[in-house]
Amino acid sequence: MVVDLNSDLGESFGNYTIGMDSKVIPLISSANIACGFHAGDPTVMKKTVALALQNGVALGAHPGFPDLVGFGRRNMAASPSDVYAMMVYQIGALAAFAKAAGAALQHVKPHGALYNMAARDAKLAEAIACAIHDVDPHLILFAQPGTESIREAKKIDLPTACEVFADRSYQDDGSLTPRSQPGAMITDESQSISQVLSMVMDHQVTTLSGKVIPIQADTICVHGDGPKAVAFVTRIREALASKGITVAPAGTFVRE
Amino acid sequence: MVVDLNSDLGESFGNYTIGMDSKVIPLISSANIACGFHAGDPTVMKKTVALALQNGVALGAHPGFPDLVGFGRRNMAASPSDVYAMMVYQIGALAAFAKAAGAALQHVKPHGALYNMAARDAKLAEAIACAIHDVDPHLILFAQPGTESIREAKKIDLPTACEVFADRSYQDDGSLTPRSQPGAMITDESQSISQVLSMVMDHQVTTLSGKVIPIQADTICVHGDGPKAVAFVTRIREALASKGITVAPAGTFVRE
Amino acid sequence: MVVDLNSDLGESFGNYTIGMDSKVIPLISSANIACGFHAGDPTVMKKTVALALQNGVALGAHPGFPDLVGFGRRNMAASPSDVYAMMVYQIGALAAFAKAAGAALQHVKPHGALYNMAARDAKLAEAIACAIHDVDPHLILFAQPGTESIREAKKIDLPTACEVFADRSYQDDGSLTPRSQPGAMITDESQSISQVLSMVMDHQVTTLSGKVIPIQADTICVHGDGPKAVAFVTRIREALASKGITVAPAGTFVRE
Amino acid sequence: MVVDLNSDLGESFGNYTIGMDSKVIPLISSANIACGFHAGDPTVMKKTVALALQNGVALGAHPGFPDLVGFGRRNMAASPSDVYAMMVYQIGALAAFAKAAGAALQHVKPHGALYNMAARDAKLAEAIACAIHDVDPHLILFAQPGTESIREAKKIDLPTACEVFADRSYQDDGSLTPRSQPGAMITDESQSISQVLSMVMDHQVTTLSGKVIPIQADTICVHGDGPKAVAFVTRIREALASKGITVAPAGTFVRE
Repeated sequence: MVVDLNSDLGESFGNYTIGMDSKVIPLISSANIACGFHAGDPTVMKKTVALALQNGVALGAHPGFPDLVGFGRRNMAASPSDVYAMMVYQIGALAAFAKAAGAALQHVKPHGALYNMAARDAKLAEAIACAIHDVDPHLILFAQPGTESIREAKKIDLPTACEVFADRSYQDDGSLTPRSQPGAMITDESQSISQVLSMVMDHQVTTLSGKVIPIQADTICVHGDGPKAVAFVTRIREALASKGITVAPAGTFVRE
Repeated sequence: MVVDLNSDLGESFGNYTIGMDSKVIPLISSANIACGFHAGDPTVMKKTVALALQNGVALGAHPGFPDLVGFGRRNMAASPSDVYAMMVYQIGALAAFAKAAGAALQHVKPHGALYNMAARDAKLAEAIACAIHDVDPHLILFAQPGTESIREAKKIDLPTACEVFADRSYQDDGSLTPRSQPGAMITDESQSISQVLSMVMDHQVTTLSGKVIPIQADTICVHGDGPKAVAFVTRIREALASKGITVAPAGTFVRE
Repeated sequence: MVVDLNSDLGESFGNYTIGMDSKVIPLISSANIACGFHAGDPTVMKKTVALALQNGVALGAHPGFPDLVGFGRRNMAASPSDVYAMMVYQIGALAAFAKAAGAALQHVKPHGALYNMAARDAKLAEAIACAIHDVDPHLILFAQPGTESIREAKKIDLPTACEVFADRSYQDDGSLTPRSQPGAMITDESQSISQVLSMVMDHQVTTLSGKVIPIQADTICVHGDGPKAVAFVTRIREALASKGITVAPAGTFVRE
Repeated sequence: MVVDLNSDLGESFGNYTIGMDSKVIPLISSANIACGFHAGDPTVMKKTVALALQNGVALGAHPGFPDLVGFGRRNMAASPSDVYAMMVYQIGALAAFAKAAGAALQHVKPHGALYNMAARDAKLAEAIACAIHDVDPHLILFAQPGTESIREAKKIDLPTACEVFADRSYQDDGSLTPRSQPGAMITDESQSISQVLSMVMDHQVTTLSGKVIPIQADTICVHGDGPKAVAFVTRIREALASKGITVAPAGTFVRE
C-alpha cells in the first residue's frame, strides 16, 4: 500500500517568510511550490526547487490567482481563458526552475480560491486541465475526488491524483464541510490519524453526520506552517509506517 | 547574405494596448515577446505567440525588470542572483506558451534597463547568460556586439546574435551614442537605411565622429509602435531585398 | 434646472495610455480620477488633478479593486473590512494630490466591479460609505439610485448624488439591464439623448419593457475613451443647453 | 533634555507578518508606518495607526519605492518628478487613515533605498521635501544630519528632525560607515548605548577612526524586528531615563 504526502511550499516572498519549509520537506513526498502570483517569487522558487530535490521530493506547481495581498484565497471572477493563460504562465515559470536544476515537474495543484472555484465550476476546471495538458500531458493534476476538476481532467486523459485532507471533515456527498460550519476542522489529532488511515487503507471516510462513504486517497495534504503542524506530519508518517503503508510521490503509482 | 529583423511585441497589458503588433509582425523574422514583468500579461503572451506562429516568425523571450509602471526602463539594483531567477522565471513562462502552441523558443533578448545594465556589468551579464543556458542551451542571446553580455555568453558557449540599430548612431568604441547626447538618434530615414546596409553588407558602420569601424550585424532591431515606425520597417525590408539580402530568423544562420 | 456630467479619467498607467482625457475634460463638470489600484499611477494622478483644475472640473476619487490586469472589472471576494481600508487608502492618496494643488475632493465614485458589487451588497456598501465618511463627511458618494450604496450612505448622512447612464437601458425595478442581455446598450444616439433629457427634466425613464418609472438624476456618466464618445458628450451638452439645463459639479447643488 | 525614539512599523503585508509591532510600540515615541509600496497594505496601515494611537505614539509616513519583492531596499532610477508623485501618494494614503482615526501625521521618513539615495542626490531630496511640504508644510522630515535631504528641506522651511543610529558607526564626515565595510555595525550593546548618550547629551559622536565630531540627534532609529532588538530598545530607554533624558515625539520639541 502506498500514499503520497503533499504540502504547500515556497510561499515566502522577498523579505517575508512563511512556512517551515526545511522542517516539513523531509517528511513529505510531493511539494506544491508557489509560482509568484499568490505567493513565492523567482528567487524563492529557485531555492525551494533545490530544497525539494535535495530531499528527494517530487516537484509540483502550485499556481494561484494574481492576488498577493489576499494570498490567493479570495474568489476572483477571472474568465476561463484568463485562467488558462495564468496556469500556463505559472506552470512554465516553475518548470524552468526544475529544468535548470536538471529535473522536471511531476504535478500541478491549483491554490486556494482557484482550487475551490474549479472544484465546482466545469468551465474553470476545463481551462485548468487543458492548460496543464497543453504544457505537458504527463503532469498529474492534484484535486479533490468527485469534483469538476477531476471530471474535466479525465475527459482529456490528464493524469489525476485524488487529494484528501487529514484535518477537515467530510459531508455525505464527499465534499469538505465548509469552514464556516461547526465541525469543519478536525482538531483531535488521533481522529485525524484515524481518518487518514481509513481513507488510505479502506478507501472510505466517516462523514460529519456519521455516514461511511467511499473515497479515493492518492495524496494527503499536510501543512508545514508551524512547529505543531510539522509535529503532526511526523505523527501521520509514523501511523502510516506502523500499518506498512509506503509514502511515495504520486507519480510513482498514479497510472496515466 | 542574410539578416534577422527583430521587434519587441506583446507589450500590451490587460485593458492597455501598446504597439501595432499585427501590422509589424508580417515584416519581421524574430519576435521579442514581453513576459509579464515590465509589460505583457499571460493572456497577451498567449495571443502574441499565436500571432507570431501564424506569421512564421521565430519566438523569443523579452524578460525585464519587475517594474510595470516604469516599463522596465529604470535601472534597478537587483543582485545577479535575483536577475538569474527573474530570467529563468520569465523565459520559462513564455516557453510554456510556445510549448502549448506546439513550438519552441528561438532566442532571448533582455529588455530596457536590464539589457543596458548587462551590457556594461559582467556579473549581470553572467547571470543572464547562465539563466538562459540553464533553461535551454540552444537559446540564442540577442545582445549588442562588444558588450559584456556577448562576452559572458561566449564563455559558456551560449549562442549569440549581434544586434544592431537602424535609428541610433554609434560611438568610436562601438557603443551607442547615449540618448542624452546630440546626434544619438538618426532621424533621417535614408541615412538609417544606409547604415543598415553598410552594417549588413560590409560589416562596418560610420560612427558619429565620421570614423569607420567594424561591426557584426546578425539581427536588426525595428519598432512597431506607430504607423510611421511600421512604414519604416517596410522601407528597410525593401532596401534589403533590393540588395538581395534575405530576411530570416537568427536561428537559421547563427551557429551554436 | 441643473445636472452634473461625470467621466472616468486618469486611467493611464506608466507607459500605457487610455482615454482622451484632455478632449473630454472641457465637456464635463466632475472628474472621477483613478487611484492606482485598477488604473492610474501617482504621476498620472498628479497630471489629471492639474488638468481638471485647469478646466474648472470638480475632483473625485475613483477607487477600485487591486486588479490592474483586470482593470478592476472582475468581482473579488474582498471582505468589507478590506474594502473599507482600500477605500480610505485610495481616497487619501488622491486627496493629497488635490491638496498639493491647493484644492479638495468633491466626491467619490467606486469603480467597476466594486461599484456593481456594492450596489447589491449592503455590507460592502456600508464599508464604502463609512470609509468615505471617515476620511471626509462632506464628500459626495456617486452611486446608482435605488442601490444599497445609496441606502447605506443615507443611513450615516453621507451626501449622495444619483448617477444615471445615457447609453444603458433600465429595467422595471430601476436597475440597469445587464450587459449580457439584449437591449442593454442604447446604441441610437438620439434615443440616448431623449433618455437623458427625460431623466433630468421629468425625473423619469422609460424602461426596456416600455414602462415609465421615476428616477433621480443628479449626475450623468459619460465616456471619453474615443473620438466617437467625445463627440457624443458634445451632443449631450448641446441638448442640455437647448433645454436651458445648466451643467455644474454635483457639489454645487447636492444638499448634504 | 529630550529625544525621540522612532521605529519602522506596519511592514506586514496580507498573510505575511514582519516585526514585533505590538512589543516595540510601547517603547517608542514616533512610528514610521509603511505605506503599501515597499511593505504594508491598507488593512495593515489601518491597524498600525490604531496601535500607535493606543500607545500615544506619533504617526509618520514611511514611503518607499514601489518594490515589494525588494522591500524597497534596491536603488531604482526613478525620476525626481516620479519620486515627488510617489511621495504625495503614499503620504496621502497614510494621512487618510490618521484622519479616519481622528488624528494627523507628525512626520515623514523615506524608507530604505529612497532614504539613502536622497541623502546624496539633491534633486531627489528636493522632490521629497517639496512633496511633503505640498501635502502639509507642518510635517517633519526625518533624515540624517548633513545630507542633501536636510539641506533641501531647510531651503523651503520644511521642519526637520535629525536622525541618528545606535547600531551604526560613523565616518569622519558624519556619514554612516557603509555596511560593506568592517566596523559598520556596532554589535556591542554597551558601545551602542554610549554612542546614543554621547549624541543626545553632548551632541557629538566618536567616529570609527576615533575622531570626535559634532552631530545633532533629534530622533534615534530603533528596531523591533526580533526579541533581541526589542530588548535593546528597553535598554536604551533605561539608559536615557537614568540620565534624566525624556523620550517624546519629535513634534513636541522640533521647532518649525
